[in-house]
Amino acid sequence: MKNILVIGLGLIGGSIAKSLNKTEFNVFGMDTSSQTIEKAINDKAIVQKFNNIEEFLVHNDDGIIVFATPPSTIIEIIESNRKILNTNFSITDVSSSKLNISKFLKGYQPKNFVFSHPIAGSHKSGYENSSKDFFNQKKLIISKYFSHDEHYQRIHDLWISLKADVLSLSIEEHEKFFSATSHLPHLISYALIKTINDKGIDIEKFSAGGLSEFIRLAKSSEILWSDIFKSNLENIEEDTKAFIKNMHDLLEEASKNDSKSLLKKIQLIKKGVS
Amino acid sequence: MKNILVIGLGLIGGSIAKSLNKTEFNVFGMDTSSQTIEKAINDKAIVQKFNNIEEFLVHNDDGIIVFATPPSTIIEIIESNRKILNTNFSITDVSSSKLNISKFLKGYQPKNFVFSHPIAGSHKSGYENSSKDFFNQKKLIISKYFSHDEHYQRIHDLWISLKADVLSLSIEEHEKFFSATSHLPHLISYALIKTINDKGIDIEKFSAGGLSEFIRLAKSSEILWSDIFKSNLENIEEDTKAFIKNMHDLLEEASKNDSKSLLKKIQLIKKGVS
Repeated sequence: MKNILVIGLGLIGGSIAKSLNKTEFNVFGMDTSSQTIEKAINDKAIVQKFNNIEEFLVHNDDGIIVFATPPSTIIEIIESNRKILNTNFSITDVSSSKLNISKFLKGYQPKNFVFSHPIAGSHKSGYENSSKDFFNQKKLIISKYFSHDEHYQRIHDLWISLKADVLSLSIEEHEKFFSATSHLPHLISYALIKTINDKGIDIEKFSAGGLSEFIRLAKSSEILWSDIFKSNLENIEEDTKAFIKNMHDLLEEASKNDSKSLLKKIQLIKKGVS
Repeated sequence: MKNILVIGLGLIGGSIAKSLNKTEFNVFGMDTSSQTIEKAINDKAIVQKFNNIEEFLVHNDDGIIVFATPPSTIIEIIESNRKILNTNFSITDVSSSKLNISKFLKGYQPKNFVFSHPIAGSHKSGYENSSKDFFNQKKLIISKYFSHDEHYQRIHDLWISLKADVLSLSIEEHEKFFSATSHLPHLISYALIKTINDKGIDIEKFSAGGLSEFIRLAKSSEILWSDIFKSNLENIEEDTKAFIKNMHDLLEEASKNDSKSLLKKIQLIKKGVS
């Protein structure tokens, strides 16, 4: 039996705990909410809770530790538990942004920290939305960073056992890609909803179908997303600049008398999604 | 039997033709594609085609004319058929933006032109996607403009007979509201997809769930949307300004050392959608 500690039993952590094969893993849980811990034990998602990492270390000298908390909480916890770096424990996270954590870890060159990012919906949160088979067929990015092969393989196999579709990227690629495809869309959604609210428009009444996704994204956890925006700020700022330029270019074409120039510009953009 | 001419048998026009009760209406169609006309006749969506408005007028001295074409096409057609204004025919459109058409019509103060805007998905287009019961339970905005009561009532009743949920707005309110809730989101989607493509990112591979709606909107008809952006440009420019300011405000908060200020700002925004 392998021992695994899941720190943070929210949507992702709860889903990991529920999905793990219990004949293969002893699943332990840590969460700030005693109610969540109780539910997870009742659901047989975890066998036991720990109040802190110390307790887990006392009972184990090997195993997997998964941080399923916002990036800033991971840094806080590791700061008080630096001794878990460069040990036999394989450590991973599930964050949408890796920059802050990787900067923090850089000095330690941890051979046992592998980065993971399951690409899953972000608007729902909390243990109550977690589910068995959550990772089934879902894309998951894994980054080696300084990790040694045995740790990388162990984390890789963990996700494969949950049936995730695992892809490998460097931290830099990860941050660059997801800044544009995920972080910027969330920033846009918060900014758009604020724009509509500030105009005093009744969103429910006058929203066409196209708005529902922006609303969904704007409902995402502020704890998680303020952390992600801070972590990947430089890439997001760069993408925002390019995005605003593209908006201005389209509006400039729209202001021209030429009726075809805007149309052609949009046609070119559409080629990228057809 | 009432006579109705549907100009443009795309998604909306085709759906109107298919949905109308054929024991109550003689439905005539006009479309630049002879294939579409043929399909509509085969489907019994229309009883007969007309090649131009003249032909319809020769056979009728009363009835309804629905323009289900992009805004600029409506203006083109009315320019060559001004005599249909201020007659017994009740005329309406289905455009997402009314400003250009209303500016063009203003001098005529047409007593028989009522504006309509069914709030329906815009990413699909064409007759092949039209359907019976398309308007069932869908919100539909109607604007009186200069129309007299009997024409307003006739167009209102037309939509009610298609089971739409009809709301009344002035042209100015309509343009102001939909600039923020529909036109800006489309502009954003085109600009975002361009930003991602310009970075050389494989959209399919690295897109989280949150991106699918932006992709859907960016697939919308460039003919329709270049027209809408041009028609409602002033409102869209104003909203873009406010939206960009909101993005910059969020990024500025993200750059602060205070870990709570961005979080609080996002919390406030979320109150608008909860």
